Amino acid sequence: MPKVTEEHRVARRAQIVAAARSCVIDQGFHKTTMADVIAASELSAGAVYGYFKSKEEIVAAIAEEALSSVDELFENAMVGDEPLSPTLVLERVLKHIVSIADRPGGDVTKIALQAWAESLRNPAVKAIAEGKYRMLRGRFVEVARRAQADGTIPADADPEVVAQVLFGFVPGFILQRLLLGDVTAESYTAGLRAILR
Amino acid sequence: MPKVTEEHRVARRAQIVAAARSCVIDQGFHKTTMADVIAASELSAGAVYGYFKSKEEIVAAIAEEALSSVDELFENAMVGDEPLSPTLVLERVLKHIVSIADRPGGDVTKIALQAWAESLRNPAVKAIAEGKYRMLRGRFVEVARRAQADGTIPADADPEVVAQVLFGFVPGFILQRLLLGDVTAESYTAGLRAILR
Repeated sequence: MPKVTEEHRVARRAQIVAAARSCVIDQGFHKTTMADVIAASELSAGAVYGYFKSKEEIVAAIAEEALSSVDELFENAMVGDEPLSPTLVLERVLKHIVSIADRPGGDVTKIALQAWAESLRNPAVKAIAEGKYRMLRGRFVEVARRAQADGTIPADADPEVVAQVLFGFVPGFILQRLLLGDVTAESYTAGLRAILR
Repeated sequence: MPKVTEEHRVARRAQIVAAARSCVIDQGFHKTTMADVIAASELSAGAVYGYFKSKEEIVAAIAEEALSSVDELFENAMVGDEPLSPTLVLERVLKHIVSIADRPGGDVTKIALQAWAESLRNPAVKAIAEGKYRMLRGRFVEVARRAQADGTIPADADPEVVAQVLFGFVPGFILQRLLLGDVTAESYTAGLRAILR
Protein backbone atom coordinates (compact mmCIF):
# COMPACT_ATOMS: atom_id res chain seq x y z
CA MET A 1 0.00 0.00 0.00
CA PRO A 2 1.36 3.45 -0.88
CA LYS A 3 1.65 5.85 2.02
CA VAL A 4 -1.28 8.29 1.92
CA THR A 5 -0.11 11.72 2.95
CA GLU A 6 -2.24 14.06 5.08
CA GLU A 7 -2.17 16.51 2.17
CA HIS A 8 -3.61 13.84 -0.10
CA ARG A 9 -6.37 13.04 2.41
CA VAL A 10 -7.33 16.71 2.77
CA ALA A 11 -7.48 17.11 -1.01
CA ARG A 12 -9.61 13.97 -1.47
CA ARG A 13 -11.97 15.02 1.27
CA ALA A 14 -12.36 18.47 -0.31
CA GLN A 15 -13.03 16.80 -3.68
CA ILE A 16 -15.87 14.78 -2.16
CA VAL A 17 -17.37 17.77 -0.34
CA ALA A 18 -17.21 19.86 -3.54
CA ALA A 19 -18.97 17.07 -5.47
CA ALA A 20 -21.61 16.76 -2.76
CA ARG A 21 -22.10 20.52 -2.66
CA SER A 22 -22.82 20.67 -6.37
CA CYS A 23 -25.36 17.84 -5.98
CA VAL A 24 -27.02 19.67 -3.09
CA ILE A 25 -27.15 22.99 -4.97
CA ASP A 26 -28.84 21.18 -7.88
CA GLN A 27 -31.14 18.82 -6.00
CA GLY A 28 -31.30 19.81 -2.34
CA PHE A 29 -30.14 17.89 0.73
CA HIS A 30 -33.00 15.42 0.62
CA LYS A 31 -32.86 14.22 -2.96
CA THR A 32 -29.06 13.85 -2.96
CA THR A 33 -27.95 10.24 -2.45
CA MET A 34 -24.55 8.72 -1.67
CA ALA A 35 -24.65 7.30 -5.22
CA ASP A 36 -25.03 10.84 -6.62
CA VAL A 37 -22.08 12.06 -4.57
CA ILE A 38 -19.91 9.10 -5.59
CA ALA A 39 -20.73 9.65 -9.29
CA ALA A 40 -20.06 13.40 -9.06
CA SER A 41 -16.80 12.90 -7.16
CA GLU A 42 -15.42 10.54 -9.84
CA LEU A 43 -13.98 8.43 -7.01
CA SER A 44 -14.82 4.85 -6.14
CA ALA A 45 -17.57 4.07 -3.65
CA GLY A 46 -14.95 2.62 -1.31
CA ALA A 47 -12.89 5.79 -1.47
CA VAL A 48 -15.90 8.00 -0.65
CA TYR A 49 -17.04 5.78 2.23
CA GLY A 50 -13.48 5.93 3.56
CA TYR A 51 -14.10 9.60 4.29
CA PHE A 52 -17.84 9.75 5.00
CA LYS A 53 -19.77 6.83 6.43
CA SER A 54 -23.20 8.24 5.65
CA LYS A 55 -25.07 10.96 3.84
CA GLU A 56 -25.62 12.63 7.22
CA GLU A 57 -21.86 13.05 7.65
CA ILE A 58 -21.60 14.62 4.21
CA VAL A 59 -24.55 16.94 4.90
CA ALA A 60 -22.81 18.11 8.08
CA ALA A 61 -19.56 18.65 6.17
CA ILE A 62 -21.31 20.70 3.47
CA ALA A 63 -23.11 22.82 6.06
CA GLU A 64 -19.83 23.33 7.93
CA GLU A 65 -18.01 24.31 4.74
CA ALA A 66 -20.80 26.59 3.47
CA LEU A 67 -21.14 28.34 6.80
CA SER A 68 -17.38 28.70 7.15
CA SER A 69 -17.71 31.39 4.46
CA VAL A 70 -19.28 33.32 7.33
CA ASP A 71 -15.88 33.45 9.00
CA GLU A 72 -14.57 35.49 6.08
CA LEU A 73 -17.28 38.13 6.26
CA PHE A 74 -15.61 40.25 8.88
CA GLU A 75 -12.02 39.73 7.84
CA ASN A 76 -11.78 43.12 6.15
CA ALA A 77 -14.98 44.72 7.37
CA MET A 78 -13.65 46.34 10.53
CA VAL A 79 -10.19 47.52 9.54
CA GLY A 80 -9.30 51.16 9.98
CA ASP A 81 -9.52 53.53 12.88
CA GLU A 82 -11.96 56.03 11.37
CA PRO A 83 -15.53 56.15 12.71
CA LEU A 84 -17.07 52.94 11.44
CA SER A 85 -20.82 53.13 10.99
CA PRO A 86 -23.02 50.01 10.98
CA THR A 87 -23.99 50.99 7.42
CA LEU A 88 -20.37 50.82 6.25
CA VAL A 89 -19.78 47.43 7.92
CA LEU A 90 -23.01 46.03 6.44
CA GLU A 91 -22.08 47.37 3.00
CA ARG A 92 -18.77 45.49 3.18
CA VAL A 93 -20.44 42.32 4.46
CA LEU A 94 -23.13 42.34 1.73
CA LYS A 95 -20.55 42.93 -1.02
CA HIS A 96 -18.53 40.03 0.32
CA ILE A 97 -21.61 37.76 0.36
CA VAL A 98 -22.23 38.52 -3.32
CA SER A 99 -18.59 37.82 -4.16
CA ILE A 100 -18.78 34.47 -2.32
CA ALA A 101 -22.04 33.59 -4.11
CA ASP A 102 -20.44 34.30 -7.50
CA ARG A 103 -17.52 31.93 -6.93
CA PRO A 104 -17.19 28.90 -9.23
CA GLY A 105 -18.84 25.73 -7.92
CA GLY A 106 -22.31 27.18 -7.38
CA ASP A 107 -24.03 29.77 -5.23
CA VAL A 108 -23.24 28.80 -1.65
CA THR A 109 -26.05 31.03 -0.31
CA LYS A 110 -28.46 28.39 -1.64
CA ILE A 111 -26.88 25.98 0.82
CA ALA A 112 -27.60 28.49 3.59
CA LEU A 113 -31.35 28.36 2.84
CA GLN A 114 -31.25 24.59 2.89
CA ALA A 115 -29.24 24.52 6.10
CA TRP A 116 -31.86 26.76 7.76
CA ALA A 117 -34.66 24.33 6.85
CA GLU A 118 -32.53 21.29 7.67
CA SER A 119 -31.60 22.66 11.09
CA LEU A 120 -35.26 22.39 12.17
CA ARG A 121 -34.92 18.61 12.23
CA ASN A 122 -31.22 17.79 12.08
CA PRO A 123 -29.43 18.55 15.38
CA ALA A 124 -25.95 18.27 13.81
CA VAL A 125 -26.74 20.91 11.18
CA LYS A 126 -28.50 23.07 13.77
CA ALA A 127 -25.42 22.98 16.01
CA ILE A 128 -23.17 24.06 13.14
CA ALA A 129 -25.50 26.86 12.01
CA GLU A 130 -26.10 28.06 15.56
CA GLY A 131 -22.38 28.19 16.33
CA LYS A 132 -21.54 30.12 13.18
CA TYR A 133 -24.39 32.58 13.57
CA ARG A 134 -23.64 33.26 17.23
CA MET A 135 -20.05 33.97 16.26
CA LEU A 136 -21.17 36.29 13.45
CA ARG A 137 -23.68 38.06 15.65
CA GLY A 138 -20.92 38.53 18.23
CA ARG A 139 -18.95 40.51 15.64
CA PHE A 140 -21.99 42.77 15.26
CA VAL A 141 -21.87 43.37 19.03
CA GLU A 142 -18.40 44.85 18.44
CA VAL A 143 -19.84 46.97 15.61
CA ALA A 144 -22.58 48.21 17.94
CA ARG A 145 -20.08 49.11 20.68
CA ARG A 146 -17.84 50.92 18.23
CA ALA A 147 -20.84 52.84 16.81
CA GLN A 148 -21.79 53.80 20.37
CA ALA A 149 -18.24 55.02 21.04
CA ASP A 150 -18.37 57.02 17.79
CA GLY A 151 -21.78 58.47 18.71
CA THR A 152 -23.58 56.92 15.71
CA ILE A 153 -26.06 55.06 17.90
CA PRO A 154 -27.26 55.94 21.40
CA ALA A 155 -24.88 55.10 24.25
CA ASP A 156 -27.69 53.66 26.39
CA ALA A 157 -28.71 50.96 23.87
CA ASP A 158 -27.98 47.31 24.66
CA PRO A 159 -25.31 46.26 22.11
CA GLU A 160 -26.63 42.67 22.19
CA VAL A 161 -30.06 43.65 20.88
CA VAL A 162 -28.52 46.07 18.40
CA ALA A 163 -26.47 43.12 17.13
CA GLN A 164 -29.68 41.09 16.65
CA VAL A 165 -31.09 43.58 14.17
CA LEU A 166 -27.78 44.29 12.43
CA PHE A 167 -27.16 40.55 11.96
CA GLY A 168 -30.81 40.18 10.92
CA PHE A 169 -30.17 42.21 7.77
CA VAL A 170 -28.01 39.43 6.35
CA PRO A 171 -30.62 36.61 5.99
CA GLY A 172 -33.13 39.17 4.69
CA PHE A 173 -30.66 40.15 1.98
CA ILE A 174 -29.78 36.56 1.06
CA LEU A 175 -33.43 35.52 0.87
CA GLN A 176 -34.52 38.43 -1.33
CA ARG A 177 -31.51 37.96 -3.60
CA LEU A 178 -32.46 34.31 -4.22
CA LEU A 179 -36.27 34.51 -4.21
CA LEU A 180 -37.00 37.93 -5.67
CA GLY A 181 -33.73 38.42 -7.57
CA ASP A 182 -33.87 42.21 -7.52
CA VAL A 183 -31.69 43.25 -4.58
CA THR A 184 -28.00 44.08 -4.89
CA ALA A 185 -25.38 45.05 -2.33
CA GLU A 186 -25.71 48.57 -3.78
CA SER A 187 -29.52 48.82 -3.53
CA TYR A 188 -29.51 47.39 -0.03
CA THR A 189 -26.77 49.79 1.07
CA ALA A 190 -28.76 52.72 -0.33
CA GLY A 191 -31.77 51.55 1.69
CA LEU A 192 -29.63 51.20 4.80
CA ARG A 193 -28.28 54.73 4.39
CA ALA A 194 -31.84 56.04 4.25
CA ILE A 195 -33.11 54.34 7.40
CA LEU A 196 -30.12 53.99 9.75
CA ARG A 197 -28.91 56.77 11.99
CA MET B 1 -75.07 9.86 -3.33
CA PRO B 2 -75.62 12.63 -0.77
CA LYS B 3 -75.11 16.12 -2.13
CA VAL B 4 -71.75 17.45 -0.98
CA THR B 5 -72.04 21.11 -0.16
CA GLU B 6 -69.35 23.63 -0.97
CA GLU B 7 -69.06 24.31 2.75
CA HIS B 8 -68.36 20.63 3.36
CA ARG B 9 -65.71 20.57 0.64
CA VAL B 10 -63.95 23.63 2.05
CA ALA B 11 -63.93 22.09 5.55
CA ARG B 12 -62.59 18.75 4.29
CA ARG B 13 -59.88 20.45 2.28
CA ALA B 14 -58.87 22.51 5.33
CA GLN B 15 -58.77 19.31 7.41
CA ILE B 16 -56.35 17.72 4.93
CA VAL B 17 -54.13 20.80 4.73
CA ALA B 18 -54.02 21.04 8.55
CA ALA B 19 -53.03 17.37 8.76
CA ALA B 20 -50.36 17.83 6.10
CA ARG B 21 -49.06 20.96 7.82
CA SER B 22 -48.55 19.12 11.10
CA CYS B 23 -46.65 16.36 9.22
CA VAL B 24 -44.47 18.97 7.50
CA ILE B 25 -43.75 20.82 10.75
CA ASP B 26 -42.66 17.49 12.30
CA GLN B 27 -40.82 15.92 9.38
CA GLY B 28 -40.24 18.50 6.65
CA PHE B 29 -41.60 18.64 3.12
CA HIS B 30 -39.37 15.86 1.85
CA LYS B 31 -39.98 13.14 4.38
CA THR B 32 -43.75 13.65 4.42
CA THR B 33 -45.58 11.09 2.26
CA MET B 34 -49.18 10.94 1.03
CA ALA B 35 -49.61 7.99 3.42
CA ASP B 36 -48.55 10.20 6.36
CA VAL B 37 -51.04 12.87 5.34
CA ILE B 38 -53.85 10.34 4.90
CA ALA B 39 -53.15 8.84 8.33
CA ALA B 40 -52.97 12.25 10.02
CA SER B 41 -56.16 13.49 8.32
CA GLU B 42 -58.18 10.48 9.58
CA LEU B 43 -59.88 10.39 6.17
CA SER B 44 -59.77 7.60 3.59
CA ALA B 45 -57.11 7.57 0.90
CA GLY B 46 -59.87 8.05 -1.69
CA ALA B 47 -61.19 11.11 0.11
CA VAL B 48 -57.72 12.71 0.30
CA TYR B 49 -56.91 11.99 -3.35
CA GLY B 50 -60.27 13.54 -4.24
CA TYR B 51 -58.83 16.87 -3.11
CA PHE B 52 -55.12 16.52 -3.87
CA LYS B 53 -53.78 14.33 -6.65
CA SER B 54 -50.19 14.41 -5.47
CA LYS B 55 -47.89 15.42 -2.68
CA GLU B 56 -46.77 18.35 -4.85
CA GLU B 57 -50.31 19.73 -4.80
CA ILE B 58 -50.43 19.44 -1.01
CA VAL B 59 -47.01 21.10 -0.64
CA ALA B 60 -48.27 24.02 -2.75
CA ALA B 61 -51.44 24.24 -0.62
CA ILE B 62 -49.43 24.28 2.63
CA ALA B 63 -47.08 26.94 1.31
CA GLU B 64 -50.05 29.01 0.11
CA GLU B 65 -51.80 28.67 3.46
CA ALA B 66 -48.68 29.37 5.53
CA LEU B 67 -47.76 32.40 3.48
CA SER B 68 -51.32 33.69 3.58
CA SER B 69 -50.57 34.56 7.22
CA VAL B 70 -48.43 37.23 5.57
CA ASP B 71 -51.62 38.92 4.36
CA GLU B 72 -52.63 39.52 7.97
CA LEU B 73 -49.40 41.22 8.95
CA PHE B 74 -50.40 44.67 7.81
CA GLU B 75 -54.09 44.51 8.68
CA ASN B 76 -53.67 46.57 11.81
CA ALA B 77 -50.13 47.81 11.36
CA MET B 78 -50.87 51.01 9.48
CA VAL B 79 -54.05 52.29 11.10
CA GLY B 80 -54.13 55.75 12.58
CA ASP B 81 -53.22 59.15 11.18
CA GLU B 82 -50.41 59.96 13.58
CA PRO B 83 -46.84 59.97 12.26
CA LEU B 84 -46.09 56.30 11.71
CA SER B 85 -42.42 55.44 11.99
CA PRO B 86 -40.95 52.31 10.34
CA THR B 87 -40.02 51.19 13.87
CA LEU B 88 -43.65 51.26 15.00
CA VAL B 89 -44.85 49.33 11.92
CA LEU B 90 -42.10 46.74 12.35
CA GLU B 91 -42.91 46.38 16.06
CA ARG B 92 -46.54 45.59 15.17
CA VAL B 93 -45.52 43.18 12.40
CA LEU B 94 -43.05 41.28 14.64
CA LYS B 95 -45.60 40.98 17.46
CA HIS B 96 -48.13 39.63 15.00
CA ILE B 97 -45.61 37.07 13.68
CA VAL B 98 -45.05 35.78 17.21
CA SER B 99 -48.82 35.55 17.81
CA ILE B 100 -49.25 33.59 14.55
CA ALA B 101 -46.37 31.27 15.49
CA ASP B 102 -47.98 30.57 18.88
CA ARG B 103 -51.31 29.46 17.40
CA PRO B 104 -52.40 25.86 17.94
CA GLY B 105 -51.42 23.47 15.15
CA GLY B 106 -47.70 24.18 15.16
CA ASP B 107 -45.32 27.05 14.49
CA VAL B 108 -46.08 28.15 10.94
CA THR B 109 -42.80 30.08 10.72
CA LYS B 110 -41.10 26.68 10.44
CA ILE B 111 -43.03 26.20 7.21
CA ALA B 112 -41.61 29.51 5.99
CA LEU B 113 -38.03 28.22 6.35
CA GLN B 114 -38.95 25.09 4.47
CA ALA B 115 -40.74 27.05 1.76
CA TRP B 116 -37.60 29.16 1.26
CA ALA B 117 -35.47 26.07 0.69
CA GLU B 118 -38.15 24.36 -1.39
CA SER B 119 -38.55 27.39 -3.64
CA LEU B 120 -34.99 26.90 -4.91
CA ARG B 121 -36.12 23.81 -6.79
CA ASN B 122 -39.94 23.86 -6.87
CA PRO B 123 -41.30 26.50 -9.26
CA ALA B 124 -44.86 26.25 -7.82
CA VAL B 125 -43.66 27.02 -4.28
CA LYS B 126 -41.32 29.72 -5.58
CA ALA B 127 -44.21 31.43 -7.42
CA ILE B 128 -46.35 31.42 -4.25
CA ALA B 129 -43.52 32.73 -2.03
CA GLU B 130 -42.47 35.34 -4.57
CA GLY B 131 -46.03 36.64 -4.96
CA LYS B 132 -46.61 36.90 -1.22
CA TYR B 133 -43.27 38.55 -0.52
CA ARG B 134 -43.63 41.08 -3.34
CA MET B 135 -47.03 41.99 -1.92
CA LEU B 136 -45.60 42.33 1.58
CA ARG B 137 -42.64 44.38 0.38
CA GLY B 138 -45.10 46.61 -1.46
CA ARG B 139 -46.72 47.45 1.86
CA PHE B 140 -43.29 48.51 3.14
CA VAL B 141 -43.06 50.89 0.16
CA GLU B 142 -46.16 52.59 1.61
CA VAL B 143 -44.45 52.68 5.02
CA ALA B 144 -41.38 54.28 3.43
CA ARG B 145 -43.47 56.93 1.62
CA ARG B 146 -45.37 57.74 4.77
CA ALA B 147 -42.13 58.03 6.79
CA GLN B 148 -40.79 60.36 4.10
CA ALA B 149 -43.94 62.49 4.31
CA ASP B 150 -43.57 62.57 8.11
CA GLY B 151 -39.89 63.50 7.81
CA THR B 152 -38.64 60.33 9.56
CA ILE B 153 -36.50 59.27 6.62
CA PRO B 154 -34.93 61.49 3.93
CA ALA B 155 -37.27 62.69 1.18
CA ASP B 156 -34.72 61.91 -1.56
CA ALA B 157 -34.45 58.16 -0.73
CA ASP B 158 -35.92 55.63 -3.16
CA PRO B 159 -38.88 54.07 -1.31
CA GLU B 160 -38.38 50.80 -3.21
CA VAL B 161 -34.89 50.24 -1.79
CA VAL B 162 -36.02 51.41 1.66
CA ALA B 163 -38.75 48.74 1.43
CA GLN B 164 -36.08 46.09 0.67
CA VAL B 165 -34.31 46.69 3.96
CA LEU B 166 -37.49 47.14 6.02
CA PHE B 167 -38.92 43.89 4.63
CA GLY B 168 -35.51 42.28 5.14
CA PHE B 169 -35.88 42.57 8.92
CA VAL B 170 -38.65 40.01 8.91
CA PRO B 171 -36.77 36.88 7.70
CA GLY B 172 -33.84 37.87 9.93
CA PHE B 173 -36.18 37.90 12.92
CA ILE B 174 -37.89 34.61 12.02
CA LEU B 175 -34.56 32.85 11.44
CA GLN B 176 -32.99 33.97 14.72
CA ARG B 177 -36.17 33.13 16.63
CA LEU B 178 -36.06 29.54 15.34
CA LEU B 179 -32.31 28.89 15.22
CA LEU B 180 -30.95 30.90 18.12
CA GLY B 181 -34.14 31.11 20.20
CA ASP B 182 -33.17 34.30 21.99
CA VAL B 183 -34.88 37.08 20.07
CA THR B 184 -38.30 38.43 20.96
CA ALA B 185 -40.51 41.08 19.36
CA GLU B 186 -39.51 43.27 22.32
CA SER B 187 -35.73 42.77 22.02
CA TYR B 188 -35.85 43.28 18.25
CA THR B 189 -37.91 46.44 18.64
CA ALA B 190 -35.42 47.79 21.18
CA GLY B 191 -32.64 47.12 18.67
CA LEU B 192 -34.61 48.84 15.91
CA ARG B 193 -35.19 51.91 18.09
CA ALA B 194 -31.44 52.16 18.65
CA ILE B 195 -30.40 51.98 15.00
CA LEU B 196 -33.24 53.51 12.96
CA ARG B 197 -33.66 57.23 12.42
